[in-house]
Amino acid sequence: MLHGIKAGFALDARLEADSVPLMWLGLCELRLMDDCRWPWLVLVPQRAGIEEMHDLTPLDQAMLTFETNLVSQGLKTVTGCRKINIGALGNIVRQLHVHVIARNEGDPGWPGPVWGHGVREPYDRSKLHEFAERIKAAL
Amino acid sequence: MLHGIKAGFALDARLEADSVPLMWLGLCELRLMDDCRWPWLVLVPQRAGIEEMHDLTPLDQAMLTFETNLVSQGLKTVTGCRKINIGALGNIVRQLHVHVIARNEGDPGWPGPVWGHGVREPYDRSKLHEFAERIKAAL
Repeated sequence: MLHGIKAGFALDARLEADSVPLMWLGLCELRLMDDCRWPWLVLVPQRAGIEEMHDLTPLDQAMLTFETNLVSQGLKTVTGCRKINIGALGNIVRQLHVHVIARNEGDPGWPGPVWGHGVREPYDRSKLHEFAERIKAAL
Repeated sequence: MLHGIKAGFALDARLEADSVPLMWLGLCELRLMDDCRWPWLVLVPQRAGIEEMHDLTPLDQAMLTFETNLVSQGLKTVTGCRKINIGALGNIVRQLHVHVIARNEGDPGWPGPVWGHGVREPYDRSKLHEFAERIKAAL
């Protein structure tokens, strides 16, 4: 069973459709966005009914920060990117989730944000699996 | 002297030009973006030479989280907005800074991100001061 391990938590259907599971951290489910335009990870705190970061308990806020920065450091190391972009928007998908994206000069939409830019381009399966393995090895 | 209180820290010139100082928290300088399209605050950790959140010390990471969530809660209370957007991008301004923005259905660019959307619209001075006072009173 991939989801529902934490009481009452169920992954949003749109997040589930657009990304694949990578691993479970102490608080978050870590997922890889299935969009080959940018190396793009998403952390979803496994807590039911939370929309804003400030609505997490103080301990969960600290855990989310720790896990976000761990993932950010790992993604930068694996990709050698110029800049990490971190965002928690939730205007469309309300379930709290944090994006961690590797950006480089000249990538699609640079220097603008990735959200709302063009149309998602799914990976070739072999490339998706290869990238997923590299991220898992780095964390 | 507004800046340079923390050793070696100097506010990026573009952040200084686009926003006004509100108050100093333990780690961050809190600023109000001078753009009346959205209620928009920016936290700038007063640390020299930091571009990525994961390059802060663990204590500074925890402080930044605490201050970001304090500001997020305050902005949501003051504005009654539908959703808070939080982002640390830095593709243009490299000095680490965290955006906290109040969003509502139908606001400019909704449900997309605010970054890169159209052209900044400065406040009338009286409205800027009024909003700044409301934020300061809420924190």
